[in-house]
Amino acid sequence: MQAELLIHADWILPVDASDETLAKHSLAIADGRIAALLPRTEAEAQIDATRTLDLPGHVLIPGLINAHTHSPMSLLRGLADDLPLMTWLHEHIWPAEGRWVDQEFVADGTRLALLEMLRGGVTCFNDMYFHAEVTAKVCAEAGMRVVAGMIVVDFPTRYADNAHDYLHRGLELHDRYRGHPLVRPAFAPHSTYTVSEEPLQRIRTLADELDAQVHIHLHETRDEVQQVLGMHGERPIARLDRFGLLGPQLIAVHMTQLEDEEILRLADTGAHVVHCPESNLKLASGFCPVHDLIAAGVNVALGTDGAASNNDLNVLGELRTAALLAKGVSGMANAVPAEQALRMATWNGAKALGLEDEIGSLEVGKAADVVALDLDNPHTQPMYHPCSQLVYAASSHQVRQVWIGGRQVVRDGAVLTLDPDAIIKAARGWGERIGQK
Amino acid sequence: MQAELLIHADWILPVDASDETLAKHSLAIADGRIAALLPRTEAEAQIDATRTLDLPGHVLIPGLINAHTHSPMSLLRGLADDLPLMTWLHEHIWPAEGRWVDQEFVADGTRLALLEMLRGGVTCFNDMYFHAEVTAKVCAEAGMRVVAGMIVVDFPTRYADNAHDYLHRGLELHDRYRGHPLVRPAFAPHSTYTVSEEPLQRIRTLADELDAQVHIHLHETRDEVQQVLGMHGERPIARLDRFGLLGPQLIAVHMTQLEDEEILRLADTGAHVVHCPESNLKLASGFCPVHDLIAAGVNVALGTDGAASNNDLNVLGELRTAALLAKGVSGMANAVPAEQALRMATWNGAKALGLEDEIGSLEVGKAADVVALDLDNPHTQPMYHPCSQLVYAASSHQVRQVWIGGRQVVRDGAVLTLDPDAIIKAARGWGERIGQK
Repeated sequence: MQAELLIHADWILPVDASDETLAKHSLAIADGRIAALLPRTEAEAQIDATRTLDLPGHVLIPGLINAHTHSPMSLLRGLADDLPLMTWLHEHIWPAEGRWVDQEFVADGTRLALLEMLRGGVTCFNDMYFHAEVTAKVCAEAGMRVVAGMIVVDFPTRYADNAHDYLHRGLELHDRYRGHPLVRPAFAPHSTYTVSEEPLQRIRTLADELDAQVHIHLHETRDEVQQVLGMHGERPIARLDRFGLLGPQLIAVHMTQLEDEEILRLADTGAHVVHCPESNLKLASGFCPVHDLIAAGVNVALGTDGAASNNDLNVLGELRTAALLAKGVSGMANAVPAEQALRMATWNGAKALGLEDEIGSLEVGKAADVVALDLDNPHTQPMYHPCSQLVYAASSHQVRQVWIGGRQVVRDGAVLTLDPDAIIKAARGWGERIGQK
Repeated sequence: MQAELLIHADWILPVDASDETLAKHSLAIADGRIAALLPRTEAEAQIDATRTLDLPGHVLIPGLINAHTHSPMSLLRGLADDLPLMTWLHEHIWPAEGRWVDQEFVADGTRLALLEMLRGGVTCFNDMYFHAEVTAKVCAEAGMRVVAGMIVVDFPTRYADNAHDYLHRGLELHDRYRGHPLVRPAFAPHSTYTVSEEPLQRIRTLADELDAQVHIHLHETRDEVQQVLGMHGERPIARLDRFGLLGPQLIAVHMTQLEDEEILRLADTGAHVVHCPESNLKLASGFCPVHDLIAAGVNVALGTDGAASNNDLNVLGELRTAALLAKGVSGMANAVPAEQALRMATWNGAKALGLEDEIGSLEVGKAADVVALDLDNPHTQPMYHPCSQLVYAASSHQVRQVWIGGRQVVRDGAVLTLDPDAIIKAARGWGERIGQK
């Protein structure tokens, strides 16, 4: 068999139907896809590769998927900390965004976010922000896979005047990227407290017509649930259910406030949950009942949320927090074991984004979104179980090589498709302007 | 003024009585101590330094203090995960220790732990393990500051036969390191469920005579509290109180199960609490009420616990987890703000270990235990507040330079006083032997 690249690694965690660890295996890439996954001896005998890469001490994993973020908010990282959600939004984030967010902010912020995510082994992210056409363009140029949110809110911003206008701009984005190998648009109504019934109903119809996912903040805090209950006489999840939005197209983010029957309803309808443990902790939003959701059969993916409430876009750190926190919250030390945490950040993310046929695992035929981490490091030794070292001990700077759709985007820890110095310089400039107030 | 070294940094977080951030300041080191801390312009005018180090984009902080660990257990990292405390101890850790722990294990395990801790900006740790004389010797050689635990349990191990024998070996260690600049022994009775009344009473007397701290696991889990209540008719904390052990010499580790009056009693007596959030999460031990303890005036320090239950010795990661988790547990987003999290891992640690006159802050006259982190990195930009970037976004590989008592132990990210290749090789050998079973 012919291949462009053959990678030999000490361990491969394919995250396929099993939770197997493959020792001394090799992965072949051809035409941007995984062409073979074989024991090294067989791969050496059967595969005729243009290039070979030997990675002793490394583990290969599927590219990490950040299933919820607001990438340009990297420019607001650390602007306001140690505040609850509504104070943080109303007194700090929304005023800063109102004053500063334009196309240049989004371009520079997305680039800063991409630099951090690519360097940390993230190969796909689900974004929600203004000027998504800029984010999509930056990602396409940098070789990053993105689900670009067609954001909708009722209130005017510099990006759009009203819900109709937001949708119109989103649909332009959708048309522009039809069939693009890296950019997939999704509807992104902000929440049930910022988007009214008419645009939510319209999104329901359009999502069916265009076969697009619907990405929304849902049950993030107790206050949100109470507010919507006060405004509309129903909890946010019931409201979406009534509009026909609970289903396999729904990406419901946060979900810290859930009653038992709501968990069952999520499972019955096939809606996806994105757990953002660090943002939920930092804003004291509450605890997502991850263990109960998984037990009920709900697909739970992982997101960092934006860097203004996390404050990083480190999915490897997030999956560790998810694995640890689930144990504390459920009181069961076997809740979310290492293999499940890795699955949340790969396969489950792909499923939530409607991309499970394309990415999320290392299986023959899927796109070659592959990450190699060097575990030959004091803090990931000795080696009893590679998945344990990855989840409970590795840090993102151990990511050494990253491919997206077979294109190498990180080599020896350096991002190849972006200019780090220029990006940090631009970020510093924004920091100086915004920090002055 | 003469100095051996003058360091210019963009920011200094001294963690003194204030929570100030000093911009464009310089720190001078002479005779192993901090000789001056001044605005850069004044330092350049006043200080005649043998060597000058300019660190643009860097922040200087006091050396991080890991107030509870079992350093040689680094060799058991990832041996058994996703299990509750008692299953993990009885079925995995204690059998492995019984079979493998000897002086060589402790030497190799301590070295692996030191490599990780020094690399991560930890300049002092409070240890509890067998063969503490080996740990002390390795630390003295590597230039690491350690509070070496004179461990006591009732049951026999390869290290000692009974409580009397443990104490005897501990006291030998104490005599050997009297007045040593880096090694300070402390009594380390394992817990109230593994150490009986007579040795605990003896430790009370000896701790007074020798002016040594007493380091103990306390109220780690609900089961522990119930077990001791069943055995002795009193909760562990009441038992220690009755023996006269609650006081400023007590380093009480974990404390996830606390009644209101117990918190008040801790505050009244001046006992110290060491919070180990990641270990408590991983073993599903419960949540330490950090916010309530601090509000009551209890000194709360931070520890990683051993690498077999964390699974790293990364204090920078731990202080981030502490800052995030306190918000989630208390439901208040302003609980444990960034400055307080940093203080827990520096000043509060020094106070718990009885070393607050020597270390824990960057103040003139204290030992020069200093860490420089490079914040000129995509995931710590832009710069609104250095302490926020340090606590909520920085990762330990951004630690670039470390001094302990004025001796440089890490330069440009490389540990100077240990041999990384030999240590990783030894760790790998232990992993192969122990993993085979």
